[in-house]
Amino acid sequence: MTQSHMAREVAEIPEAAARFLSTAGPVLAEAGAALRRRDPQLVVTVARGSSDHAASYLKYAIELLAGIPVASVGPSVASIYRRPLRLAGAACLGISQSGRSPDIVEMMNAAREGSALGIAITNHGGSPMAAASDHCLALAAGEEQSVAATKTFVNSVLAGLALLAEWQQDHELRRAVTGLPDALAQAVALDWSPLSARLARASQAFVLGRGPAYAIASEAALKMKETSGIHAEAYSAAEVLHGPAAIVQAQFPVLALGIGDAALPQLLTTAERLAAQGADVFVTGGVATGATRLPTVEGLHPLVAPLALIATYYAFVEALARRRGFDPDTPPHLRKVTETM
Amino acid sequence: MTQSHMAREVAEIPEAAARFLSTAGPVLAEAGAALRRRDPQLVVTVARGSSDHAASYLKYAIELLAGIPVASVGPSVASIYRRPLRLAGAACLGISQSGRSPDIVEMMNAAREGSALGIAITNHGGSPMAAASDHCLALAAGEEQSVAATKTFVNSVLAGLALLAEWQQDHELRRAVTGLPDALAQAVALDWSPLSARLARASQAFVLGRGPAYAIASEAALKMKETSGIHAEAYSAAEVLHGPAAIVQAQFPVLALGIGDAALPQLLTTAERLAAQGADVFVTGGVATGATRLPTVEGLHPLVAPLALIATYYAFVEALARRRGFDPDTPPHLRKVTETM
Repeated sequence: MTQSHMAREVAEIPEAAARFLSTAGPVLAEAGAALRRRDPQLVVTVARGSSDHAASYLKYAIELLAGIPVASVGPSVASIYRRPLRLAGAACLGISQSGRSPDIVEMMNAAREGSALGIAITNHGGSPMAAASDHCLALAAGEEQSVAATKTFVNSVLAGLALLAEWQQDHELRRAVTGLPDALAQAVALDWSPLSARLARASQAFVLGRGPAYAIASEAALKMKETSGIHAEAYSAAEVLHGPAAIVQAQFPVLALGIGDAALPQLLTTAERLAAQGADVFVTGGVATGATRLPTVEGLHPLVAPLALIATYYAFVEALARRRGFDPDTPPHLRKVTETM
Repeated sequence: MTQSHMAREVAEIPEAAARFLSTAGPVLAEAGAALRRRDPQLVVTVARGSSDHAASYLKYAIELLAGIPVASVGPSVASIYRRPLRLAGAACLGISQSGRSPDIVEMMNAAREGSALGIAITNHGGSPMAAASDHCLALAAGEEQSVAATKTFVNSVLAGLALLAEWQQDHELRRAVTGLPDALAQAVALDWSPLSARLARASQAFVLGRGPAYAIASEAALKMKETSGIHAEAYSAAEVLHGPAAIVQAQFPVLALGIGDAALPQLLTTAERLAAQGADVFVTGGVATGATRLPTVEGLHPLVAPLALIATYYAFVEALARRRGFDPDTPPHLRKVTETM
């Protein structure tokens, strides 16, 4: 059987990460220094789809490490409603694999007209979004043929984390980022087949996380829809108790993505509560009564651990898609570049 | 048959709105003047569940009317990760029906320690959240017995819009807010039974919107889960084309919430595309080929129209819950006050 593009691109994740790190040093240093000079009071992010999940990950990372609030700005504010935002003194972080979704480019232009420092994260350094920015972190992920973004998602988050480490001159995070290619190589080789067996015939699922792992939960839920036709929805492990738990009946599949950070106890408590309700709960990062634990790469910095988790998940979901009879490279109704306004 | 608490509280929406407007004048004037003096460069919102959908509505309203970026801050940043944010010069808007979720209260305290102007929107003026704020907009909605928030959601958004009108001294918005009790009385009386018939036996649905109507779509999807056991998920009408459309097969129910604003053409295009894919599409605010149009209150200001829409939706979803054999007052597994950390 021929390997899918998605399987090949997931396997390339570690080398794509290493390639970014080996090429991006100068631009990371420049953009990091520009951020220190600007000392922004606010970071705004502009992105859609998987890239918006990368932005959400970086929101938590920036808030937790730098203490700077991060606002996700709907590209429609500029592209449809034509309302300029007051962004003087802010940094504007745009993330787009292709760098050519018109609404994202328009928002980046509007941000720079509002005197924000514009930083683009894209796999296409010659794209309109790159041209609309002060600094461009080119992902160097190589061409991505699968509609489902994998290695470009990982490199988008990696680029943002590497930039954050430079900006804050944080040596622990810098060391963790440097070690990511090795961690990712371990991550893509892990075995989540118990979850795959459970989801072989599922139609719905919840994916839970908290902090940066919530961003990963959102990405995981999107990929389960895209590649495997499962109506998966992501929730923060706190938010799920405010209503969505109402549809969790017996055998409802729940994947709770924990990492070894301060949010783990609450995540495990939520996992136990849903398991006690009769859900089929799978958990990472710790032990929850009634739940099946899945393996992860241990001992990682809490701001990079969720990124290793999604690499394992990508390998898992590609196999799940094939098991369910889908071609992971060609999800129904989707195109690689979605040009929304 | 006895009327449910939820049905009675939905019927009370117009009078609860009128009561807020008749009592809140002085505090709105004070808080509006405080905002003009502070002239914040940033607004942060802190909320969970339905209240977070109210915050999301107000994010669009503030960005579109005042041009000030709004960041939604996860309460966990303060309560779990213990990371103080730099919020000098910001306004912090906390929204909570009960005013006593510990993580929300902690974040409000952290914001004020960081010199932000703290504004609470709550139905309980004597609550810990009110005590942690510089100004408190008490909703005056009366007691809410149904687990599913309805009149308190409407009054939370109304309070925020009334404050925005005072802050920006925007007479059009002020006039629109003053007219809301009448608009809401029309809204709760509208008939969406074609949608009710379609959803009588559905297990899944998408609810779409854009701008402030996207916040309403999120609230609508949550209520469909809570009260009727349908796995409904909200998407921006742009975002849905970036992956989620993959699970929209023949007869998949889609509710596209349009209002007469600049985003309507794109919403209708998305509705038509999903209808062409075979989905059962229902639409408000305009005509889309292949979709069933539902009635709405016409001619409203674009920043209040989505609020009238949710009032109609609440009346609809309460009836839907009973039609599906649920008690809308007691959703499985939920409590009225969810005290998350």
